[in-house]
Amino acid sequence: MALSAQTERIILGIDPGTNVLGYSIIEQCGKTNRLLKMDVIVLGTKDELSTKMKILFDKITDIIDIFKPDILAIEAPFFGKNVQSMLKLGRAQGICIAAAFSRSIPFVEYSPRKVKQSITGNGAASKEQVANMLQRMFNFENIPSHLDATDALAVAVCHSYQKEELSGVKTPAKKSTTKKSSWASFVSQNPDRIK
Amino acid sequence: MALSAQTERIILGIDPGTNVLGYSIIEQCGKTNRLLKMDVIVLGTKDELSTKMKILFDKITDIIDIFKPDILAIEAPFFGKNVQSMLKLGRAQGICIAAAFSRSIPFVEYSPRKVKQSITGNGAASKEQVANMLQRMFNFENIPSHLDATDALAVAVCHSYQKEELSGVKTPAKKSTTKKSSWASFVSQNPDRIK
Repeated sequence: MALSAQTERIILGIDPGTNVLGYSIIEQCGKTNRLLKMDVIVLGTKDELSTKMKILFDKITDIIDIFKPDILAIEAPFFGKNVQSMLKLGRAQGICIAAAFSRSIPFVEYSPRKVKQSITGNGAASKEQVANMLQRMFNFENIPSHLDATDALAVAVCHSYQKEELSGVKTPAKKSTTKKSSWASFVSQNPDRIK
Repeated sequence: MALSAQTERIILGIDPGTNVLGYSIIEQCGKTNRLLKMDVIVLGTKDELSTKMKILFDKITDIIDIFKPDILAIEAPFFGKNVQSMLKLGRAQGICIAAAFSRSIPFVEYSPRKVKQSITGNGAASKEQVANMLQRMFNFENIPSHLDATDALAVAVCHSYQKEELSGVKTPAKKSTTKKSSWASFVSQNPDRIK
């Protein structure tokens, strides 16, 4: 894939799920992010879990082989579901992370609150608010019907705002330390995030 | 690795855990199983989750590269833990399964009850009873201090008793359909499993 000379890094964002999994690829050039791909992987509810896991592994490795990301940014599951759901979600997350490992790509995990905070300035924003904000940033025509896709874009963009250098595998603090601020102050502090 | 002419298959058994993970490798030749390796991977409790996952992925792929198993037999987690534990356990299981996928090895999953039933004839057997039975089968001198190792051997042996042909990825029924039977009837029905 031809990349511009300014390319700093390609980020794969994943919002894991057991039936629908969102993914996105962005190319970060300095302070500018370019959307390369945003979609979902729909895993049939009728398939056996083992089949779903194999399909998921193959699709994620295919995406990695095509776009050659430098890092996987993945959203941590939100606690509060039942134990069976958490087990399935954990498996899906493990499969995605190991798919990255199988291509020597490190991963970084962000809490849903941290992701929402980074995109909208409000850690308690709704999925729709996150999607609307991303639509303004990237000027895509229609918001996808599955918001898992925009959630995956959100986690990739969240990572692009982090200043740490990539140095192997690491996980930042799961909880945002940024104080909750108003939309107005967020916009004034982050003019480059608004188009 | 030199294998005998009678070799039918090499089975990797895994009992997944987030801090201690048991694994075993057996070589199945007809009705005879030979123990090639049984051990645990101890993941430091102080390490970050991301580091643990990377170590786990690397260790499992190393084991696969050394022993070249035909299949991974993995024990399904026992429900009843809290959501955070289930998420971690799911991730560990996902990592192991994806490590197998990364080497094009299918996996099969067995419930703890099915595994215990296969080894001892009693689906509610204790870990110690399973370990004692395996010690009699394989004549190893000492029972490992971590029973995760013998649990991993149990799931490999459980798979060796299944008659299905290997054909890609599949998961058998999670619940054993074998009726609970007495030890005496199990021994009389399975003379080849007792040494």
